Amino acid sequence: MLRLPPFAAARCIPAGPRLGLLCLAGSFARSRPPAGDGGPLFRQVRAAAGGERLPVLKTPKGTRDHPPAQAALRERLLGAVVSCFKRHGAAAIDTPVLELRETLLGKYGEQSKLIYELQDQGGELLALRYDLTVPFARYLAMNKIKKMKRYHVAKVYRRDNPATTRGRYREFYQCDFDIAGQFDPMIPDAECLKIVHEILSDLQLGDFVIKVNDRRILDGMFAVCGVPDSKFRTICSSVDKLDKVPWEEVRSEMVGEKGLSPEAADRIGEYVQLHGGLDLIEQLLQDPKLSQNKVAKEGLGDMKLLFEYLTLFGITGKISFDLSLARGLDYYTGVIFEAVLLQQENEHVEEPVSVGSVAGGGRYDGLVGMFDPKGRKVPCVGVSIGIERIFSILEQRLEASEEKIRTTETQVLVASAQKKLLEERLKLISELWDAGIKAEMLYKKNPKLLNQLQYCEETGIPLVAIVGEQELKDGVVKLRIVATREEVNVRRESLVEEIRIRTSQC
Amino acid sequence: MLRLPPFAAARCIPAGPRLGLLCLAGSFARSRPPAGDGGPLFRQVRAAAGGERLPVLKTPKGTRDHPPAQAALRERLLGAVVSCFKRHGAAAIDTPVLELRETLLGKYGEQSKLIYELQDQGGELLALRYDLTVPFARYLAMNKIKKMKRYHVAKVYRRDNPATTRGRYREFYQCDFDIAGQFDPMIPDAECLKIVHEILSDLQLGDFVIKVNDRRILDGMFAVCGVPDSKFRTICSSVDKLDKVPWEEVRSEMVGEKGLSPEAADRIGEYVQLHGGLDLIEQLLQDPKLSQNKVAKEGLGDMKLLFEYLTLFGITGKISFDLSLARGLDYYTGVIFEAVLLQQENEHVEEPVSVGSVAGGGRYDGLVGMFDPKGRKVPCVGVSIGIERIFSILEQRLEASEEKIRTTETQVLVASAQKKLLEERLKLISELWDAGIKAEMLYKKNPKLLNQLQYCEETGIPLVAIVGEQELKDGVVKLRIVATREEVNVRRESLVEEIRIRTSQC
Repeated sequence: MLRLPPFAAARCIPAGPRLGLLCLAGSFARSRPPAGDGGPLFRQVRAAAGGERLPVLKTPKGTRDHPPAQAALRERLLGAVVSCFKRHGAAAIDTPVLELRETLLGKYGEQSKLIYELQDQGGELLALRYDLTVPFARYLAMNKIKKMKRYHVAKVYRRDNPATTRGRYREFYQCDFDIAGQFDPMIPDAECLKIVHEILSDLQLGDFVIKVNDRRILDGMFAVCGVPDSKFRTICSSVDKLDKVPWEEVRSEMVGEKGLSPEAADRIGEYVQLHGGLDLIEQLLQDPKLSQNKVAKEGLGDMKLLFEYLTLFGITGKISFDLSLARGLDYYTGVIFEAVLLQQENEHVEEPVSVGSVAGGGRYDGLVGMFDPKGRKVPCVGVSIGIERIFSILEQRLEASEEKIRTTETQVLVASAQKKLLEERLKLISELWDAGIKAEMLYKKNPKLLNQLQYCEETGIPLVAIVGEQELKDGVVKLRIVATREEVNVRRESLVEEIRIRTSQC
Repeated sequence: MLRLPPFAAARCIPAGPRLGLLCLAGSFARSRPPAGDGGPLFRQVRAAAGGERLPVLKTPKGTRDHPPAQAALRERLLGAVVSCFKRHGAAAIDTPVLELRETLLGKYGEQSKLIYELQDQGGELLALRYDLTVPFARYLAMNKIKKMKRYHVAKVYRRDNPATTRGRYREFYQCDFDIAGQFDPMIPDAECLKIVHEILSDLQLGDFVIKVNDRRILDGMFAVCGVPDSKFRTICSSVDKLDKVPWEEVRSEMVGEKGLSPEAADRIGEYVQLHGGLDLIEQLLQDPKLSQNKVAKEGLGDMKLLFEYLTLFGITGKISFDLSLARGLDYYTGVIFEAVLLQQENEHVEEPVSVGSVAGGGRYDGLVGMFDPKGRKVPCVGVSIGIERIFSILEQRLEASEEKIRTTETQVLVASAQKKLLEERLKLISELWDAGIKAEMLYKKNPKLLNQLQYCEETGIPLVAIVGEQELKDGVVKLRIVATREEVNVRRESLVEEIRIRTSQC
């Protein structure tokens, strides 16, 4: 599924200043270099000795490292998403980051120019995957799989131009859930929407709305408005801009650049301002023009069915049937949807959180057939969670709350108060590791107790197991609770159990 | 860390027929295409209609998809490794798959030709990372980090030639744990060996030995044997072949190809056959020649200290100080090690499991300095788990045991025995999802009960929640236990709890 580039999908980010991102950029400044090209620190520095040229110290343009705090937050976030996908019975698959160039060819329309190609080093011509949907379709066709519910969380690559789309990354995660197979209409489609609803609710990102439309309704609408068949796709991509550009501009693109008649454009203009629920569907089913169009009628009928299922799921409150939703990719054939966070007063942060599309997807019944030698189709519907955008929101929120995220899970530091106890520390920590306790020690022969305690404060380790000569004689270990500074002597044979109990709520 | 290509590190796989791999190749044959170039199924098939050329249906040479069963096994395996890394207090980081070409330049010696380069599409010249160690060193230098314990589990890329190294993949996972920082000698080094010991024991891969040596001991040995300084590296890489080539062959390479004197080669030959424990270290510390060599003495002194620490960890039984261990990469500066599974009678499988190196690593005190404009060093030691090799062993074992691995975690299938109950199924499954229960249903309006039960058998779903008209009237759901075919009526409000209890042991 999909086209949700991280932080900023060109389609859905408001054109204003990106305060949210600016704020974010500062949040890990200590450990993160600028992602763009601006002012690399050590560019072509020559080493003092030998005059050897040092490598430029940066990650490639549009990519970044994830230091421990980011990696830990990302692990939490991906965990929540994957747990939802598993709740819905999906199996994981993995496909290579590399695909044959021809596998990706002709699947992304104009966006194809953003595909990273590998150098021809002899052998096959390769490229980095652009999304997870096309590889999934290739996988299904290659293995002749007719039915599958899978999720895939992995990185994808787009050679986007950061000069025009600030804040967009060239390497980013996608989290996709897809259902392939011939089934009764709209049941899997409804489940995809339920998944978006569950994830956005679980993550407590604030209020959101899931816009829904259907490519067939769009096509029918274009037909009854007098758009020639040959212009459906290009007019569709004009409509796709409506979430960030006012109608007047879109209209002038349609008429001026794309040669649509002003009357047809105005008719479209009337439709695309409509959004609502079951009422609107019923109204359009009665619409004198649309109701005469076969594909539109099919689409509207299915939309009605979808809303019935969503009502049973109890989630129609967050669903909006929106005739202006078009989505860019060519391969959609039926239902399409996109979840948008709603701007709101936020008590936690001073600067507004940047809002925009955080999930999207739709039905693509023709893509697998493009890979099958006999063109056999496998209908698919799927959803992609815009994890990078969500990540930036959570990161910003964490920053604002001043909550410090722990980057390790260490339960206890093995320490000593006196000198010459390295061997005893090694013996004890080995016992703890073997019992499955997460334990650390300082890599010094004779560390100062103060330094050991300070290490716990810095890293959030809740307990210290202190070995001392007297304790060794008595067969005990002094267990210190870092938060309260309380100290208790624990018999060595009970230590593991004691640590487990005391860290079970952490 | 490291150079453990998946399945077959050229250094350590015996030259014989790769029965283990052959066996493995069949194990997922149903869902997996050949990884090599042999006989692509649909190469350049022309579509019946339109004469359009279809894409070749394959993954790039040397890469493969992971279908659900493999992905699930891999998740388990990576989970065990990561849990050990966390037990030792490591934090996760992530770095881009893409690096600047110059970052990778000059770090891998002759292996540099295996680096995948991206096409010059304007802008920076990029390459795919070759391992996780060089990016880690780049990360430390770029962020001026002097101290860090991190793990990183991710894919790396090597444009290896499958013609000469059968079974080797070009995209594979590495699992690295590294400790960076200036510490008292051998404490972090000992922890790395403890980690290898824990992981190999936890995974129950059978008997193993961890060979240990030190680059300083090797260098000292070369010096006292009369190897000219300029030949240290090349002679070292000859020694590196000893695990798969007999001494006579290595000797003739040294003398014939590399121009070493026969006397020097023979002296080396005496040393490299030595392996043992503390006794051997003591013996070499008394060796009239080695004991006069400064670096060798340093190395032996540290090796002694290492063995003392490993004794405290109780793991010397699996450690062998082995003078023939050299390891290929240039960047090692101190302790080096490699874990090898030992061939054994295996009760479970008929064909012998291919054995070889499953973990390796060492100390590299100079690598970070190569990135620092002032050459400031950050000493590092680390270990890489050869996850692909271990994966192939576990996969083969699973295959032999005929245990079927579940690819989903679904607890309950929501089913109906009568027609026209789709709405009731949707209502119930929605309740279950919202309560965090992993639930599925068939995407059919009126599925047959038999088909629903069969789906559970196939996918391992342990429970079926059956809605029927009578049950709806009575406010109950019929819960069927798939394994025993037992059926109980459960009050709707107790269903979630009942499912939780009954699947808590799964």
